[in-house]
Amino acid sequence: MNPDRLAVTVIGLGSMGSALAGALLDGGHPTTVWNRSPGKAQALLDRGARLAATPGEAVGASPVVVACVLDYQALHTVLDPVADSLAGKVLVNLSSGSPEQAHEAAEWARSHGADYLDGAIMTTPPGVGSPEMMFLYSGSRAVFDANRPTLATLGDPLHLGTDPGLASLYDAALLGLMWSTMTGWLHGTALVRAEKTEATAFTTVAVRWLSAVAGFLTTYARQVDDGRYPGDDATVDVQIATIDHLIHAAAARGIDNALPELLKATMERAREAGHGSDSYASVIEVLKKPAGDR
Amino acid sequence: MNPDRLAVTVIGLGSMGSALAGALLDGGHPTTVWNRSPGKAQALLDRGARLAATPGEAVGASPVVVACVLDYQALHTVLDPVADSLAGKVLVNLSSGSPEQAHEAAEWARSHGADYLDGAIMTTPPGVGSPEMMFLYSGSRAVFDANRPTLATLGDPLHLGTDPGLASLYDAALLGLMWSTMTGWLHGTALVRAEKTEATAFTTVAVRWLSAVAGFLTTYARQVDDGRYPGDDATVDVQIATIDHLIHAAAARGIDNALPELLKATMERAREAGHGSDSYASVIEVLKKPAGDR
Repeated sequence: MNPDRLAVTVIGLGSMGSALAGALLDGGHPTTVWNRSPGKAQALLDRGARLAATPGEAVGASPVVVACVLDYQALHTVLDPVADSLAGKVLVNLSSGSPEQAHEAAEWARSHGADYLDGAIMTTPPGVGSPEMMFLYSGSRAVFDANRPTLATLGDPLHLGTDPGLASLYDAALLGLMWSTMTGWLHGTALVRAEKTEATAFTTVAVRWLSAVAGFLTTYARQVDDGRYPGDDATVDVQIATIDHLIHAAAARGIDNALPELLKATMERAREAGHGSDSYASVIEVLKKPAGDR
Repeated sequence: MNPDRLAVTVIGLGSMGSALAGALLDGGHPTTVWNRSPGKAQALLDRGARLAATPGEAVGASPVVVACVLDYQALHTVLDPVADSLAGKVLVNLSSGSPEQAHEAAEWARSHGADYLDGAIMTTPPGVGSPEMMFLYSGSRAVFDANRPTLATLGDPLHLGTDPGLASLYDAALLGLMWSTMTGWLHGTALVRAEKTEATAFTTVAVRWLSAVAGFLTTYARQVDDGRYPGDDATVDVQIATIDHLIHAAAARGIDNALPELLKATMERAREAGHGSDSYASVIEVLKKPAGDR
C-alpha cells in the first residue's frame, strides 16, 4: 500500500463494485470492502483488501466511502442504520438512480454531516481503472477537487456541476444515446448481413462514419443552444426523402422497420412544425413536448 | 489544369454535384459540367469548368462521367437518349437510390458498353474534397483501381465489393445509424437542457462517450458474426432495468419518450426470445424478423 493514498471503503461487490475495489488496490489505496454476501470478497482479500464485518465497521475504516449497490433502496438499507458514523466522511455514490434520488441522497448525507458526490460510471467493469474511461460526478466542487486523486484511480473524473442530480441525468441521457446508436447499428448490420456482408466489415466503416456523425453533433449542439437551425448542409425535408431508401431496402429483406419508421414519423412531425428546410437539429423542437400535446 | 489528370464530366449541379465539380477543378482535372438548368454552372465556369450544351456533349467530353442527380429516374431521363455515347466510358453514379436500382443501372450501363461504379457520398457538400471523408463504391474492382486517383480527388474512396448494390446498401444502413444516433442525442440533449445544461456542454461528453460506444460496436460485431452473444459486460436484462431511469427522468421533464419506449420494447422482445442474459448484440435476432412474425 502507498502511504500517500487515502484509505477507501467500497460498499457493494457486484461486478462493478469489485472492479472499483480492484482499481483502488492497484492504485495503492488501503481498501476495505463490505458486501451483503461476504463470499464475493475473497478475490479482493487475496489482493490485499480488508473485509469489514458490518456496514458500520466499513464506514468507520476510511475517510472516503464509495457505494456501488443495486439502487437507492439498497443504499439506504445498508447505510441508514449507520448514518451517524458518516459524519466527516465523503460518501461517493456510484449506484444507479434518478436525479431526484441523487438530490434526496445528497440531502440525507448532509443531514448526517457527510460530504456527498453523486457519480455515474461510463464504462463496463473491465474498463474501470483505465484513465480513458469517464466517471461523471456532481455535487460540491470543493469536495470533488479535494478527492480528485482518489477518484482518478477509478477512471477519468469529470465534474459536471454542483447540482447532485447532474451525474444521473447525464448517465440517463448518455445511455439513451448508446441504446439508440447500438440499435441503429444493429438495424444496419441486419440489412448488410442480408446481402452476405459480415458485421465486422460493415462495422469498420460504421465506426469511422460515427466520427463524422460526432462532427455533425458538435455543429448541431451550437444550433440547439442558439435556437436556430440553418439547414445549409442537409434539411429535414431531404432526410425524410432519403429515409425511404432505408425503409424499402430493409422491408425487402424482411427486417423489422419499427425504428426507422419512428425516426421518419419524428422527422415528419418536425416538418409539420415548420422545420422542413431546417437542419436535423430542429427535431429537438418536437421532442421537447410529448406527441399528444401537439 | 494538370495534364496528368483525366478529364471528368459532372452531370447534375445541385449543391453536391457542384461540390464534386469544384473538387475536381481543385485537383487539376479538366472538368466539363452539365445541368438541366444551366444557370447553376456559372460559379464553376468562373473557376475553369467547361459547360456542355447537351448531355451528349457532356458524355463525349471525358472518359469518366460522374452523375449526381436527384434519383435514378432523373439519371435515366438524362442519359437514356445518349446511352450509345457511353460505350468505352466509366460511369460513376453518385445519385442516391436503392441496391436494386444500382443493379439495374449497372446492367443498363453494361448493355451500352460502359464500365459502371455505384457510389455513395458519406459527407455533406462542404466535406467533398477532404481526404478524410468516405466515398463508398461498389462494382468492378479493376474499374475502381484504375480510377482510384480520380476518385481520391473527391474524398477517401473505399471499395466495398463487386456487387454494385453494396454502396447503396451501406449508404442506407449508415444513414440509419446516423438518424438513430442523432435522435438519441437530441433526446438526451432535451433532457439535460431541461436542467439548464447547455447542449454544447453535454455534447462534449456525448462525443467522447460515442467513441466508447464505437468500441462496444466493434466487440458486438464479432458476436453477431459468431451468432453468440456472451453477456459478460452488460446483459439485456440489465439494460431493460436501466432504461426506466431514462424514461422516468424524461417523462418528469415533459420530453417525448417514443424513442426510448421503442428501444425498451425491442429489448423486451429480445428477452422474450431468450436473450435476457445475453449482450445487447443479441437484439439483432429480433430485428431480423418483423414484429408481426413472432
